[in-house]
Amino acid sequence: MSAGGFKAQHLAIVGLGLMGGSMALALRPFVDKITAVEMDPATREYALKRGMVDRVTDDLKDGVSEADVVILAAPVRAILTMIRSRIGAYLRMNTLLIDIGSTKEDICNAMAILPIGVQAVGGHPMTGKEQSGCEASDAALYVNRPFVLCPSRRTTPATLLRARMLVDALGAVPIEMDAHRHDRVVAAISHLPYLLSAALVATVAQEAQTDDAVWTLAAGGFRDTSRLAAQDVQMMGDILGTNTQAVATLLAYFRVHLANIEAMLISQDSQQLADRLRPVREARLAWGERQENGKK
Amino acid sequence: MSAGGFKAQHLAIVGLGLMGGSMALALRPFVDKITAVEMDPATREYALKRGMVDRVTDDLKDGVSEADVVILAAPVRAILTMIRSRIGAYLRMNTLLIDIGSTKEDICNAMAILPIGVQAVGGHPMTGKEQSGCEASDAALYVNRPFVLCPSRRTTPATLLRARMLVDALGAVPIEMDAHRHDRVVAAISHLPYLLSAALVATVAQEAQTDDAVWTLAAGGFRDTSRLAAQDVQMMGDILGTNTQAVATLLAYFRVHLANIEAMLISQDSQQLADRLRPVREARLAWGERQENGKK
Repeated sequence: MSAGGFKAQHLAIVGLGLMGGSMALALRPFVDKITAVEMDPATREYALKRGMVDRVTDDLKDGVSEADVVILAAPVRAILTMIRSRIGAYLRMNTLLIDIGSTKEDICNAMAILPIGVQAVGGHPMTGKEQSGCEASDAALYVNRPFVLCPSRRTTPATLLRARMLVDALGAVPIEMDAHRHDRVVAAISHLPYLLSAALVATVAQEAQTDDAVWTLAAGGFRDTSRLAAQDVQMMGDILGTNTQAVATLLAYFRVHLANIEAMLISQDSQQLADRLRPVREARLAWGERQENGKK
Repeated sequence: MSAGGFKAQHLAIVGLGLMGGSMALALRPFVDKITAVEMDPATREYALKRGMVDRVTDDLKDGVSEADVVILAAPVRAILTMIRSRIGAYLRMNTLLIDIGSTKEDICNAMAILPIGVQAVGGHPMTGKEQSGCEASDAALYVNRPFVLCPSRRTTPATLLRARMLVDALGAVPIEMDAHRHDRVVAAISHLPYLLSAALVATVAQEAQTDDAVWTLAAGGFRDTSRLAAQDVQMMGDILGTNTQAVATLLAYFRVHLANIEAMLISQDSQQLADRLRPVREARLAWGERQENGKK
């Protein structure tokens, strides 16, 4: 399948944060008209002024009922609420509905009971930026990044093809994957790291109560390991709350690995400890090289 | 105390890695002569060619016996071996001996039983770079970075003053601290993060055995949280092995915080979870701002 096949007469984007705003910028050349559904008046005004979209509204029905492609670019719980309670009744026949929520199983299950005729598929672009919000939007945000597509039980091959063409238009790399499998993978590479980062900051903050020097001396190692702890709490709560089983499973495996390393440390078995840490280092270095090569 | 008071006739640097090499570059204007003790012939040749030092040798006694300032810029266990077994007999009276090992209690205890007349003090500069090795040396590596000074039981005020002047000459910020306290602080902000990073990579590598997609989809969050796992295994083994008690203590506290968060997650108490994660996020953001302000 070649890139460039994506076309829409009327694209509706629900939620104009960093992700939705960047979608608008990137898909501009492929669509006749873009309507944004956005609750924040200042963001609506900003997007219109900058010419990112043609029309804005705060009304979901008004925004999506004329669209042939609808992208839900909201937090996971908001996406779930829209799919479960309202949006099915608003959409035209054969509208492509795709979301970009960070967990996929609950969303794809909800998509499977939308009215016949809605062409729904779950999506998760693996990209981001330090800054958030519409002002940080960037047409290149998705370029060369993986974009996971998760079919629901009712997603047809034709729907998947339309979604792949949309992903191609973004410049992203489509990866098809079962929603359950997706959620397990992101539990390991995103949600577990977030929880470790948060528990690390909680531990250091506790130390700081008796010795403020921890904040003074903390440097690059702490900065990187703790960065995820600064993520939006509501957003992460949504994500964790819709992926509890996978996250709890990964946490349990993590504890085993940590306990294993700790035992070697406390028993002062430095040879065994080095033998355990060496393949871990090599795995991380191999991944880093793979990432570098992927950029070329 | 003002900067610029540091002077040495003959500076000896033992170990010409990134840290030792950068010391040579930064201290050049303040010393008449620099001798490097370095085991690797290629590094010796490189440092001479680049004019970083005046003289090189692979013999510790030969390198340090004429010096009035000696910096031990080797891994922790190598520093300990030098202090415990040999260097005391080689040094002249009133030589300032300082090390830059990442843990300080064992080293300061060893310094306390050096011959009378050796002016020894423990040091730990909180700086670094992605690259390692002498070629990565940078005269600005220490500028505006904290440089911890840990007196041994025998360190005199005069010795501390000489060490502070050396730290000033590097452009670093001297912070005096008891060695035991130092080791507890770095256990929290460096050694615990390393172990979490390593156990995270071990967990993801285990997942990869059944689903290679973890490596494909891993992005910025994983990259940052796992970066420390790529650190040199021997170096980290030395560090952990000389700070076992503090690291094990911090690991125990970390487990409590992680278990606390996990309980809220599994019980699906999203309000309690958000209430727990919010102050953690704020602590991390406050530290980030403090870092930014410190740079100005």
